[in-house]
Amino acid sequence: MNDALPSSDQGAAGPLIPVLAVVGVGLIGGSFAAALRQAGQVGKVLGVGRNAQSLERAVALGLIDEAVTAEASAAQADLIMLATPVGGLTNVLSQMRTHLSPRAVLTDGGSTKAEVVEAARDALGDRIGQFVPGHPIAGAERTGPEAADADLYRGRTVILTPVPENGAAAMAFVRQAWQACGAHVIDMDADAHDRVLASVSHLPHLLSSVYMEQVATAADAATRLELAGSGFRDFTRIAAGSPEMWRDIFLSNRDAMLAELAAVRGVLDRAERAIADGDGEALLTLLDTAARARRGWRKE
Amino acid sequence: MNDALPSSDQGAAGPLIPVLAVVGVGLIGGSFAAALRQAGQVGKVLGVGRNAQSLERAVALGLIDEAVTAEASAAQADLIMLATPVGGLTNVLSQMRTHLSPRAVLTDGGSTKAEVVEAARDALGDRIGQFVPGHPIAGAERTGPEAADADLYRGRTVILTPVPENGAAAMAFVRQAWQACGAHVIDMDADAHDRVLASVSHLPHLLSSVYMEQVATAADAATRLELAGSGFRDFTRIAAGSPEMWRDIFLSNRDAMLAELAAVRGVLDRAERAIADGDGEALLTLLDTAARARRGWRKE
Repeated sequence: MNDALPSSDQGAAGPLIPVLAVVGVGLIGGSFAAALRQAGQVGKVLGVGRNAQSLERAVALGLIDEAVTAEASAAQADLIMLATPVGGLTNVLSQMRTHLSPRAVLTDGGSTKAEVVEAARDALGDRIGQFVPGHPIAGAERTGPEAADADLYRGRTVILTPVPENGAAAMAFVRQAWQACGAHVIDMDADAHDRVLASVSHLPHLLSSVYMEQVATAADAATRLELAGSGFRDFTRIAAGSPEMWRDIFLSNRDAMLAELAAVRGVLDRAERAIADGDGEALLTLLDTAARARRGWRKE
Repeated sequence: MNDALPSSDQGAAGPLIPVLAVVGVGLIGGSFAAALRQAGQVGKVLGVGRNAQSLERAVALGLIDEAVTAEASAAQADLIMLATPVGGLTNVLSQMRTHLSPRAVLTDGGSTKAEVVEAARDALGDRIGQFVPGHPIAGAERTGPEAADADLYRGRTVILTPVPENGAAAMAFVRQAWQACGAHVIDMDADAHDRVLASVSHLPHLLSSVYMEQVATAADAATRLELAGSGFRDFTRIAAGSPEMWRDIFLSNRDAMLAELAAVRGVLDRAERAIADGDGEALLTLLDTAARARRGWRKE
């Protein structure tokens, strides 16, 4: 497949990304490589990771051309996609720093951004301008190289949360790479991103899980689960997601989570008081605002 | 359609319910009549309601044979299905009481039971044994006679919450009627019913609506709704339901709602503390309990 593509020394006539490195060859990183390959926008793909078996499978699947060290990828790649949990980011970036080619641009796929930016700033120091933080709003329950899908990002939104040190060329390069994957790219402030994602993604997951835990640990849990219907089914679907992944996201986005949770608690307090007081009017106003907003939501 | 069925004076060889009366000819009452008709278990169907247009449409649709007063239905019917909001129940039962045939059995389709039993006891006095409270766990967004569906109750669960005064014959009669509709019938204590339904039906609705209201009234609501994805979609689906209906259910089931809400708040407090303290282990335990329970739920 790679043979059919122009090689990296073709210069301006070649692909957008002569050498791509992907750190973490699972769903997010593997799909990024596959999408860029499918679009003919990548020359060579290097894979970096701690799991040798995953890297071997990624080579066998044609996602990457070869497995290399973090240091080698830093020296050779034009674009480096960091698709690892935020916990491992500092370590990888520290390994890369002194080897990093001046032309290399780094980006990532993490679900929260303020903590990532802080970790990158610590690890990269005065090279921070080479790192353009990003978050593709796409995901699936699957993991590992086998989950990689060249169409995962098609029609999806990718949010970039640039740091002041990012140059226009680095921003444009990352934006074009995502556009080549079929994604719609927008820019946001990192803190605003984290608050919005805490609100529309992380908090529903927390509330659904908290609710599900309470039902599952009740003395009459079996009766409850027996009589639960379609409302329960929809409301709790997300509670089945990976506990490890969501723990990491909640902790990584702590401040925004606590702020949004406090705001939701404020509305919950109002609703509880209306029920306790038999205040039908207050309750109706609240329910009506919610119902109108949900019915008017563009996506359904 | 009715002409093809045995008439009520055929006695033991006739249908299970020679004369059925339905108070409120919308989704719940209309579907009950339609299902019993389809099963050939009903002779004549009387309709009672405050909305003359709805009654006319119910006649035109063949759901009821004629519209009568509450008093007339009490005197003529063998089974009376009360499918009206709890708020109107006392009034209807008071109208019926002095006219009620000794052979008549009453039942209802309300979503909460303790308040219904109390209202029925007040209105019916020493005739309370003729009222067998029930709750079909089935519903839809549609309302009015046009929403009636002979298959609405097929395969669904109906919970009866008998009062001590109910005789075995009255219980069996109501049970058989629901079974003729294709439903699975179970008995529960009214308070236990209300607690379980508060947990698996009413509370998810409250939490989904409270959350949706908070998102919709945030200063950056448009950005949030733009970036919301599939988790948000599932979690908020029930918030689109009828505000009036859910207000009535919440107020009618106040005590159970407040008790269940307090229990969920207890888990929410634990989760919030774990996030604030960076306690990954406590958070993982909670999320894992929820994920296992949801994955093991039999219905999906």
